[in-house]
Amino acid sequence: MVRDMNSVRVALMQINTIVGDLKENSEKIIFCIEKAKAKDADIVVFPELAVTGYPPEDLVLKPHFVKENIGYLNKIARSVKDIVAVVGFISRSEKGIYNSAGILANKKVNYVYNKIHLPNYGVFDEKRYFRPGELQRAVLKTRDFSFVVNICEDIWVSESDREKQVLSQVQFLINISASPYCMGKIDERRKLLSEKAKKNGIAIVYCNLIGGQDELIFDGRSAVFVKSGRFIAKAEAFKEDLMIAELPLNPRKKSKPKRNVKVIDIDYGSKWKKKSLRSSEFVKDMSKVEEVYSALVLGVHDYVKKNNFEKVAFGLSGGIDSALVASIAVDALGKTNVLALSMPSRYSSKGTQDDAEKISKNLGMRFIKVPIDDIFNAYLDTLKTHFLGMSRDITEENIQARIRGNILMAFSNKFGYLVLNTGNKSETSVGYCTLYGDMAGGFAVIKDVPKGLVYELVDYVNNKEKREIVPASIIRRPPSAELSPGQKDQDTLPGYGLLDRIVDLYIEKKKSLTDIIKMTGDEAIVRKVLRMIDANEYKRRQGPPGIKITPMAFGKDRRMPITNRFGEARHERDNA
Amino acid sequence: MVRDMNSVRVALMQINTIVGDLKENSEKIIFCIEKAKAKDADIVVFPELAVTGYPPEDLVLKPHFVKENIGYLNKIARSVKDIVAVVGFISRSEKGIYNSAGILANKKVNYVYNKIHLPNYGVFDEKRYFRPGELQRAVLKTRDFSFVVNICEDIWVSESDREKQVLSQVQFLINISASPYCMGKIDERRKLLSEKAKKNGIAIVYCNLIGGQDELIFDGRSAVFVKSGRFIAKAEAFKEDLMIAELPLNPRKKSKPKRNVKVIDIDYGSKWKKKSLRSSEFVKDMSKVEEVYSALVLGVHDYVKKNNFEKVAFGLSGGIDSALVASIAVDALGKTNVLALSMPSRYSSKGTQDDAEKISKNLGMRFIKVPIDDIFNAYLDTLKTHFLGMSRDITEENIQARIRGNILMAFSNKFGYLVLNTGNKSETSVGYCTLYGDMAGGFAVIKDVPKGLVYELVDYVNNKEKREIVPASIIRRPPSAELSPGQKDQDTLPGYGLLDRIVDLYIEKKKSLTDIIKMTGDEAIVRKVLRMIDANEYKRRQGPPGIKITPMAFGKDRRMPITNRFGEARHERDNA
Repeated sequence: MVRDMNSVRVALMQINTIVGDLKENSEKIIFCIEKAKAKDADIVVFPELAVTGYPPEDLVLKPHFVKENIGYLNKIARSVKDIVAVVGFISRSEKGIYNSAGILANKKVNYVYNKIHLPNYGVFDEKRYFRPGELQRAVLKTRDFSFVVNICEDIWVSESDREKQVLSQVQFLINISASPYCMGKIDERRKLLSEKAKKNGIAIVYCNLIGGQDELIFDGRSAVFVKSGRFIAKAEAFKEDLMIAELPLNPRKKSKPKRNVKVIDIDYGSKWKKKSLRSSEFVKDMSKVEEVYSALVLGVHDYVKKNNFEKVAFGLSGGIDSALVASIAVDALGKTNVLALSMPSRYSSKGTQDDAEKISKNLGMRFIKVPIDDIFNAYLDTLKTHFLGMSRDITEENIQARIRGNILMAFSNKFGYLVLNTGNKSETSVGYCTLYGDMAGGFAVIKDVPKGLVYELVDYVNNKEKREIVPASIIRRPPSAELSPGQKDQDTLPGYGLLDRIVDLYIEKKKSLTDIIKMTGDEAIVRKVLRMIDANEYKRRQGPPGIKITPMAFGKDRRMPITNRFGEARHERDNA
Repeated sequence: MVRDMNSVRVALMQINTIVGDLKENSEKIIFCIEKAKAKDADIVVFPELAVTGYPPEDLVLKPHFVKENIGYLNKIARSVKDIVAVVGFISRSEKGIYNSAGILANKKVNYVYNKIHLPNYGVFDEKRYFRPGELQRAVLKTRDFSFVVNICEDIWVSESDREKQVLSQVQFLINISASPYCMGKIDERRKLLSEKAKKNGIAIVYCNLIGGQDELIFDGRSAVFVKSGRFIAKAEAFKEDLMIAELPLNPRKKSKPKRNVKVIDIDYGSKWKKKSLRSSEFVKDMSKVEEVYSALVLGVHDYVKKNNFEKVAFGLSGGIDSALVASIAVDALGKTNVLALSMPSRYSSKGTQDDAEKISKNLGMRFIKVPIDDIFNAYLDTLKTHFLGMSRDITEENIQARIRGNILMAFSNKFGYLVLNTGNKSETSVGYCTLYGDMAGGFAVIKDVPKGLVYELVDYVNNKEKREIVPASIIRRPPSAELSPGQKDQDTLPGYGLLDRIVDLYIEKKKSLTDIIKMTGDEAIVRKVLRMIDANEYKRRQGPPGIKITPMAFGKDRRMPITNRFGEARHERDNA
């Protein structure tokens, strides 16, 4: 089959970049440009800031970092021939620095587009670093097609009249993005892009980053939409993907040159050749739970590998949280790279200990038992005279959790394991966790996963493997920290259904005490939970980074003062 | 003496607000307005965001927080009579929310000025929260004087022609600020204000916040400058202060009404009375070291008290860092609220143990000895089989440090102490410290103090008290973590003089590896130090908050990715 002359072949390079690794990122980009040429693509597109990785944060403030990234962009440009490449990088003018897209062709940088709308909310701080670009007024023209380029946030903002005018003169729009994942985001994005295409009667080529960077997961799902709003190709989620799409074009409009619209001729570097057509690949959608699980696996994999670790260790209690983390770790790194430590005390039940062993067998990971009672006794002896006459309380519970933290870190120091933290969002919210104890670890895998979703994910794991990875006894057992005799989470906390709802209303929906009482009906519980959330900001501040999967994660998303006497926060602190 | 009719009496209320405590802040403001009236002031001025405290961070994103703050501003307005009050608060319009100054008189809000220049660099995130105000075009007129108001950053930016025109029509400018302290800032600020006054031929009334808020210290030093650039009154540093200044005025210029300049008549609410004159108070300047020490004392006091703690505990090793923290804590909270814990091991020398006791006696604080060897032995026994055949290394050192962290937290849990961390900036930079061990604690007092400055501060402490608080033996002993036999810091690190210089060049001056090698001359050491700094971002991320005293502190000032392969950072991680 011979290609329609009224089409353009675009290659969307949905690559996983590494922040700061200018050399490796550039080599990957050059390699992908060659690959795109081998597939007879006319244009090859990379994600936002592909040269530097995203987000580079305060690296951007180092002048030599910006300089080196420009050097690499020029090196990439020199490798471009017989194709047009759109590559994200940081550009610089005498006015400041910009989040930019270089349009490269015929061994040169033909044009630089500067991002106009800089997000400075949620996890984003782009106004800290970049100057906004000026009005979009350039139409890019090469061979017999014309297009414009913009960057991430630019496409989320309503077009000005000027932008509409520019769009009306071109056949398609290329958007390069680094859009972080959270639940619901993939659908929301698809809807937005589809509407944008339809409203402007223009095709959209959308190339998104994939990969994990500290707390953020970029999910990919690059896509191509035609002017009816229908998408004709979509790339994988949570995986690197090279997608080729054959984009049918409207015949180019006669371009009456308009005031303020500059037409940039991109020198393609070769003559037009007829090329054979390959069909676009289609990939399947995911359920919400599969999406989240995939994000967590990718997040663990990338944090571990990009930080030059190979293997991980964590405390396996026989509870549901560490069971889920075990499964994620094995899927991310392979069973031989995962060590589960069981650290039982006098309060650990036989049931949880057996379950810990069972799940280790089911997953095939390494399993070691290190009982902590001798060490615990040594603490109690040493502190006896100082705590004379005082009754047991949370102090002795925390000592046990901190012994476990110390043992995990000892294995990390001795053998080079990265320690994974297994706390979920529900307990992190209310500070039902011990600083330097079960809060220890380099990476908090499920810190943004509410307890209810932990159960859904465990079901997903068992269904996916079509066998019982996580024993039913773990799923059925009432949650307990096992730090004192007969302890249950629900002695201290409301049921997780209600707790998760309150956390969602307070953290994500930013509702007030009064509103939440109205919506849930239990004043005493709501007051208690809100007080706990506010009073434990100091704990969360010292927790490890972890993967964001909700629209509002603890971390860069939510920057609350520790010293804070607003409303619910007053005069309560559990000091654990 | 009867007051000159050609003068205005301003009261600068340099108050310590509490973030989120709208009620207490408002009550303090109302109380101070009464005080200013009792001193016959014409205008009373409060710092930036006095109603909410500064910085309120993500509290601003709660709609009910903004609403309540407006309610309190209106309440304050109703208390204003026979005086003009300038009060910082958050205002709201249909376009967005603003960092504002309310001009209150005769029981009403007469005018609202919205901050134009929103800082979004360093520790500041104001573009995350606020919409910028529009061009300054209002001249405020009351009785026989006219003035303008602006907010903090507004005065640091060069005036536009429009602003110069407005300034030329008024007699003085009121700036309300929340300007955080760092070394050198007080002088820099005074110089800027003086030049601004002189250049525009206008008097400046500058009211700055005082107090500690998490990592930031606001130093006060409110001041009044006359049009020659000379200051005629300055308030205390690091203390609340009510300052009255009698400001001589130029006869008011005939105001030809200019295009775009709106004149707002402030209804003063009473007839002009002649008032008796009180002279402005003058307070003394401070040396650099005294400034830093005062900032640290204020920071500890405010963090502890504003978070509803009374007393603090920390590990007193007999080294110089914990000696300095001891002195700061006693000055901030009183000796009866300070507990020093000596936690010797087999590696602790008699010299350091004796010195720990000596300094506790000198300061009169509580002192408890809790030897850790029994607990350490229990860890070694428990881990013996797992570490079989492996030699002692950093693992066993970290276990000791983490035992101490656990004991400190046990005292915190049992008795309600806030644990102070005693790490300095030099060791924090290179990660020469143990996560969850000596890095444990709620507040890191000297985390931004380089080792060289620690010595200067200890000299200052001894000189100030005119006796040996910190024994000379502590000052003379080579620094050691005492975690293995005969260990010295300089076995692992370069001398602190060189280390501090490299840290300054890399962190504060943002110099590249190549530049720093050129400037210091030792390639191997520079490479090693930069690698350590980069590789330990993950540790600092989990450290406690602490007081910023340099232009570039670890914390909100410097937002580096943990996953980062730029340049020096590659492939090294000590994993402690």
